Amino acid sequence: MTAFISFTSDFSLRDDSVGTVKGVMWRIAPHAVIIDILHAVPDYDVVRGALSLEATLPYMPVGAHLAVVDPGVGTARRPLVISTSRGDHLVGPDNGLLLPAAEALGGVTSAHVLTNPTYMLSPMSATFHGRDIFGPAAAHLALGVAPASFGPSVSVESLVRPHLPAPQWRDGRLYTEVLYVDHYGNLRLSARVADLSNHAAPGQVVSVQVGERMVRCPWLRTFGGAEVGSPVLLEDSYWRLCLAINKASAADLYGAAVGTPLVISTT
Amino acid sequence: MTAFISFTSDFSLRDDSVGTVKGVMWRIAPHAVIIDILHAVPDYDVVRGALSLEATLPYMPVGAHLAVVDPGVGTARRPLVISTSRGDHLVGPDNGLLLPAAEALGGVTSAHVLTNPTYMLSPMSATFHGRDIFGPAAAHLALGVAPASFGPSVSVESLVRPHLPAPQWRDGRLYTEVLYVDHYGNLRLSARVADLSNHAAPGQVVSVQVGERMVRCPWLRTFGGAEVGSPVLLEDSYWRLCLAINKASAADLYGAAVGTPLVISTT
Amino acid sequence: MTAFISFTSDFSLRDDSVGTVKGVMWRIAPHAVIIDILHAVPDYDVVRGALSLEATLPYMPVGAHLAVVDPGVGTARRPLVISTSRGDHLVGPDNGLLLPAAEALGGVTSAHVLTNPTYMLSPMSATFHGRDIFGPAAAHLALGVAPASFGPSVSVESLVRPHLPAPQWRDGRLYTEVLYVDHYGNLRLSARVADLSNHAAPGQVVSVQVGERMVRCPWLRTFGGAEVGSPVLLEDSYWRLCLAINKASAADLYGAAVGTPLVISTT
Repeated sequence: MTAFISFTSDFSLRDDSVGTVKGVMWRIAPHAVIIDILHAVPDYDVVRGALSLEATLPYMPVGAHLAVVDPGVGTARRPLVISTSRGDHLVGPDNGLLLPAAEALGGVTSAHVLTNPTYMLSPMSATFHGRDIFGPAAAHLALGVAPASFGPSVSVESLVRPHLPAPQWRDGRLYTEVLYVDHYGNLRLSARVADLSNHAAPGQVVSVQVGERMVRCPWLRTFGGAEVGSPVLLEDSYWRLCLAINKASAADLYGAAVGTPLVISTT
Repeated sequence: MTAFISFTSDFSLRDDSVGTVKGVMWRIAPHAVIIDILHAVPDYDVVRGALSLEATLPYMPVGAHLAVVDPGVGTARRPLVISTSRGDHLVGPDNGLLLPAAEALGGVTSAHVLTNPTYMLSPMSATFHGRDIFGPAAAHLALGVAPASFGPSVSVESLVRPHLPAPQWRDGRLYTEVLYVDHYGNLRLSARVADLSNHAAPGQVVSVQVGERMVRCPWLRTFGGAEVGSPVLLEDSYWRLCLAINKASAADLYGAAVGTPLVISTT
Repeated sequence: MTAFISFTSDFSLRDDSVGTVKGVMWRIAPHAVIIDILHAVPDYDVVRGALSLEATLPYMPVGAHLAVVDPGVGTARRPLVISTSRGDHLVGPDNGLLLPAAEALGGVTSAHVLTNPTYMLSPMSATFHGRDIFGPAAAHLALGVAPASFGPSVSVESLVRPHLPAPQWRDGRLYTEVLYVDHYGNLRLSARVADLSNHAAPGQVVSVQVGERMVRCPWLRTFGGAEVGSPVLLEDSYWRLCLAINKASAADLYGAAVGTPLVISTT
């Protein structure tokens, strides 16, 4: 059976860190298939990394999932392997990065701290645990080493939870915000389609306040239903709502960025 | 025998779309080798994608070739698999992206529309057919599923053709234009070496009008033959002509971009 | 046994060159695993490429290592395969790119010039030897073709050496410079930890002159020991010294870039 390792980080592809970690993993597990999910997580942005993992890991084969967005590298934050109901093993720092994805994969069945030096590189640096601790752990998991071999079990309750923005209905309006801006400039929102579908129907025109600006646009299934250059509210690839301009950047046009508040009104 | 899937898109590597589609394909075809050709096709630029596929697919192993530059996602444009004389299967939207490459691979032997839900993800989104339709089709083709299993056959004549810029000789001059600018800043032209070689010989100095600017430079085989900082006309990796500056950016120096007209005179 | 090919270049991922070379290699060696180390070497920057290879190849599996940063493509510079004590084969131009890495892998055991057309693509371009000469050679080496089959042996002494910046102690101060700036904005220095450890102890505050600016900061093991926004001198992933700001860019704050001189004083 093919052993899969997915890999997500804020290392970018401008440095050689991603390649180094992949070399380390393939030396340990030469037959593993490594899937790069995303290395352009904004530097140190644990929430963005957690959202990407939560949305994408359900599309990955069952396997080891390495995730490194780790502003606390070298401090007391715990290095973890979290196992899930689906049979996956998530490897990364205990800073909230892994937990939403573990829940999307059926929930946490166990969590262990990585303390066993057998499964670490030596010499070990204080600044590159992706190479020296996390990558080797993911590769050994891909070889079939049991999570309990890496170190002591810790309770699910003790794991750090990230603060993910949550949408709210108040006074007949849906209060949400920009979770991230994709490379097309689409505004990806915290609200899900289900948050809107009890109050409006696809095809309906809605009002969207983006920061200080008011936008009237249809809620549609596809870009193709909107005029080129016109705004549209869509369901995105994360199954969340997304404010987009057909063939242009909504972020540029509306001056919006991560965290910009949006208020959607269906009347 | 190794099953290969190449993958070209305008998804960029700043988002997690490429990784998601690769995860989906490997869940279906765990033994496939996936070759990333290019994910930096400019957003929605079907012509640039078509040129890249036409130039690169002949260098790829025979296999399934997934290509997604799809401004019409979710509209009536047809999702296709096009099979070629060389034995390849090209998967993508019917918007002109695939046809020049299919011809470079020996010509189209059949084309089918992807309509069979057996080979699509469920639930299916309206905005991410790379993940939900095209990627799964490429993976099933890599497993050996026959193109006819995906949906009804359509005629080659019915396929959308892209409008590729064509060079012209007029009044003793070669009229061409910038097809694209590579990351070194070299101006990659629509004209091929064969367009020039009946009228000039390598080594000869030629005049090149770039937009409003006139440049005198040699037509050479290599950068190394030109002074650092000097212009040179070369054969590029697409076997087309290319106006370059040795160790500098011709695009910056001449203010040229995709579509900038060039006129080459050999006298 | 798995055959590995690592791949490092200045091709960037904005063009399709990397994908093309990988397709060419997989056609020749369909079972090879290809590891992308770095394709964002700054254009034509042989020294940066040499530093990256020297630091990363020891983390790679034994295999063929393809490296293309080749401003002299098409000129008389020799295309090489260099074999090492560890059993690796390094493939690339004779311009200094490969030699420091070969020494980090135990030293050069033999070097051959690539002249045998059997192992080149035909037709061959004058501008893309990565595709037409170097990539095919790396793939044939992965298949087990002996280095001597590619062309005549040349002496180690004849190989071009790169000029790598070397730190110096003078008048009780360590003179060093910025080797490169990573994507976080950390200033990666030519000096190694060993250069400092005879004169200072981790935990000690040191003075660092960056260009015209004087910075007082601790020499620590990890970012986490510094205040957010404060400078710190660290050991980096290359086991060299690095001037960093916790969660911010030292390059931006100090206006530093590759080549900026630094003087470290421990008193």
